[in-house]
Amino acid sequence: MAQEEQKGITVKKEEDFSEWYSQVVQKAELADYSQIKGFMIIRPNAYSIWEKIRSYFDKRIKALGVRNAYFPLLIPESFFKKEAEHAEGFEPELAWVNRTDDDTERLAIRPTSETIMYDSYSKWIRSHRDLPLRINQWCNVLRWEVKQTKPFLRTREFLWQEGHCVYETKEECEKEVKLILDEYQRLCERMLAVPVIAGKKTKSETFAGAEYSLCIESYMPDGKAIQMGTSHNLGQGFAKAFGISFLGKDEKPNTPWQSSWGVSTRLIGSIIMAHGDDNGVIIPPKVAENKLVIVPIYFKDKEKVSKKAKELAKKLSKYNPILDDRDEYKPGFKFNEWELKGIPLRVEIGPRDIEKKQVVLVRRDNGEKVPVKLTKLNEIVDEVLEDIQKSLFERAKKVLEKGKDKASEWKDFVKKIKDKKIVLAPSCLEPECDEIIKDETGGATPRCVPFEQKKIEGEKCIKCGKEAKAWVYFNNGY
Amino acid sequence: MAQEEQKGITVKKEEDFSEWYSQVVQKAELADYSQIKGFMIIRPNAYSIWEKIRSYFDKRIKALGVRNAYFPLLIPESFFKKEAEHAEGFEPELAWVNRTDDDTERLAIRPTSETIMYDSYSKWIRSHRDLPLRINQWCNVLRWEVKQTKPFLRTREFLWQEGHCVYETKEECEKEVKLILDEYQRLCERMLAVPVIAGKKTKSETFAGAEYSLCIESYMPDGKAIQMGTSHNLGQGFAKAFGISFLGKDEKPNTPWQSSWGVSTRLIGSIIMAHGDDNGVIIPPKVAENKLVIVPIYFKDKEKVSKKAKELAKKLSKYNPILDDRDEYKPGFKFNEWELKGIPLRVEIGPRDIEKKQVVLVRRDNGEKVPVKLTKLNEIVDEVLEDIQKSLFERAKKVLEKGKDKASEWKDFVKKIKDKKIVLAPSCLEPECDEIIKDETGGATPRCVPFEQKKIEGEKCIKCGKEAKAWVYFNNGY
Repeated sequence: MAQEEQKGITVKKEEDFSEWYSQVVQKAELADYSQIKGFMIIRPNAYSIWEKIRSYFDKRIKALGVRNAYFPLLIPESFFKKEAEHAEGFEPELAWVNRTDDDTERLAIRPTSETIMYDSYSKWIRSHRDLPLRINQWCNVLRWEVKQTKPFLRTREFLWQEGHCVYETKEECEKEVKLILDEYQRLCERMLAVPVIAGKKTKSETFAGAEYSLCIESYMPDGKAIQMGTSHNLGQGFAKAFGISFLGKDEKPNTPWQSSWGVSTRLIGSIIMAHGDDNGVIIPPKVAENKLVIVPIYFKDKEKVSKKAKELAKKLSKYNPILDDRDEYKPGFKFNEWELKGIPLRVEIGPRDIEKKQVVLVRRDNGEKVPVKLTKLNEIVDEVLEDIQKSLFERAKKVLEKGKDKASEWKDFVKKIKDKKIVLAPSCLEPECDEIIKDETGGATPRCVPFEQKKIEGEKCIKCGKEAKAWVYFNNGY
Repeated sequence: MAQEEQKGITVKKEEDFSEWYSQVVQKAELADYSQIKGFMIIRPNAYSIWEKIRSYFDKRIKALGVRNAYFPLLIPESFFKKEAEHAEGFEPELAWVNRTDDDTERLAIRPTSETIMYDSYSKWIRSHRDLPLRINQWCNVLRWEVKQTKPFLRTREFLWQEGHCVYETKEECEKEVKLILDEYQRLCERMLAVPVIAGKKTKSETFAGAEYSLCIESYMPDGKAIQMGTSHNLGQGFAKAFGISFLGKDEKPNTPWQSSWGVSTRLIGSIIMAHGDDNGVIIPPKVAENKLVIVPIYFKDKEKVSKKAKELAKKLSKYNPILDDRDEYKPGFKFNEWELKGIPLRVEIGPRDIEKKQVVLVRRDNGEKVPVKLTKLNEIVDEVLEDIQKSLFERAKKVLEKGKDKASEWKDFVKKIKDKKIVLAPSCLEPECDEIIKDETGGATPRCVPFEQKKIEGEKCIKCGKEAKAWVYFNNGY
């Protein structure tokens, strides 16, 4: 990128969110469009975030006894057909390949791997001694979306992890379905600094073939809810469909309980939307490959400053710093570039700083400048990074809280949905009502039934007026 | 797995290598066959090896300035057609999908990603300041093999890493093509304990579209060579085909030089073949997820022994030990199971050991039993694991050295090829000669032109008798 080529974001986040998102994604070199509609190239600046997510979450699930494996990309047609709801749910989005070999069965690229994994599980599981079986895979999946696609948020191919566990009892299964949701919440809030609402999907939004689906939802500055992760209790339906059974402690054949759960590269999209500003993306320190960038500033004393900057890079090596000592660019150009790319902290060092035995830290989140004595550097950097992480979360939390609203009457509900609030309303939980609400509001869907419920007794469904079963968040989401 | 079900390997490695391999793969739960021919399920016991390889190698290449990214699974037909040799090389193995959207162009599942990556590179690279560009991706690829498939060694889908770099100059490119090969050699020899021969492919075996291909080859106990990794100098051919050019320091448009390089899950196959024995697989300590298994042995004093075993697991936690305290199995059963699965070291503890303040270490590679005082445990375990790693390498090295042979006359050459030697012979390096040799020996191909060359002057090609250009290793490989 030559000096004259640098171009920042040309629209404001508040004024044209969609164009802003698109520019940030491309100009911060997070993703690029592919020639094929609906596919994206995940560039190193964004892939490194996925690596941080992966490495953190992988450790967490391994501690819970989950092991990683890899199942084939292609799934035979007959596998899909074994579980009727599941087949119906995914059929419209499948891509089939033209190779079939000696048999005549068609093969589809996996949209998710329940069916191919459970075919194997039916061979591997014999006794209660083989349970619990906890397997996860990190892979790519493909769903031929017809809706408008958007990098990270909705693409035909995406990367994800899918966990698939098998348990002896309903209780164990239920317990771990919730445990994983808690892990997802921790991942989003502590690592990505994105606050979420945790709850259950309504029947109409439940995963195809599941008994129930737990979910975490967040809410973006453009007023749309975003599903961040789901953890499904599959009940015994798949086990029966795939013939998974085990000899129990009672020495009789038993049908196990199953769960599946996943988060995807969509999480990267939530980071961009939640934290970015008019200057570009802001990567939360905990998922930043390079937590800081060192920019030497010299009009005189070039050698001395360069040498000091190199020493600094060594001293700060645990933050994996970028040392931007490119001669051909001016400091201002460099500042803009690293702000655009969202490096959490900038370290400036010039001749006067050297005299004063200090550096100047500049925070990406609020632009604050902090001169720091070299003797206290590592300590202060730790503190500042922690504070950036916390501030990003607090800021996003405010957006979520401000976005939340409540309605008990239809007219009020429609107005608040139109105002892009995430609206808590009493619901009868019937799919028919969800359908009507969607039609009459131009797309609002039940996002989740939050675990934190207020008193529902005496409330009437926002749409049909029948007895309400729960308070549900509605919004026109991603 | 119930007590009565355990079944060890029923054939000897020396007697029926192919059946032995197949049994080890399945009984050690490394992989399972898929219902679709040529596809495999990589089970956790093998996937964990891939994770170790990935984590080690990923660190190494990041230190060289390589960054990870992710490009789409599907590649438009027109991309393949841009580089003629490349298209011809991969066309027969492509699988096409039935989705095409608004355009009429066909999409194929990636067999390798040169074409789709270089289309992006042509947009990203503008100036010499953008170079070198070093990108790698860890992903799945698909090649519709018609040859007999075998888990890990030849499958239609496999996992790999593919590195794709762009350089200003030929010299830089050549240097790094070799540097990566050196990294591959280090990976194989130090981590997998599999010795290799490093060299260059002959023209007939060069990667489709490359100027030359470097490779590392190993030799398995069944007398077959196996390609472990390749590093290609792509020259400027792809750059020209994809319109990649940069404004040089000379302020003129220049064509860059490119490299690509990869290793795959095939490496896991080499570990199984090189180190396994009649009792199962042997995982080299450096790529073992669990470096040891602790087996408490009690006929009396159960509680005391159990407690001690738990303490031991804590003390040895850095080796990520398995504590096999299952009540329903006898020690002998456990020994067999962990030997089958290849855990490098077994730690036995019984009442007498507790009295003597010791444990007994049992090496997987040679069955040697070593009583060790608890005070010296960590130190000795380190030493023993290191020695196992070294011994496995030495043993495999002997197989390779014994397998090597040399021939300067055709009859002698044919006999040694038939004897399954990896035969060093003088060659004119012409593809026509390679073709004839392959036909007349029932499949022997030039595996590599080793970097270590003996004097070639005055030697005649083993087949055509014309002046030889180099000593080349021939063998009927995997």
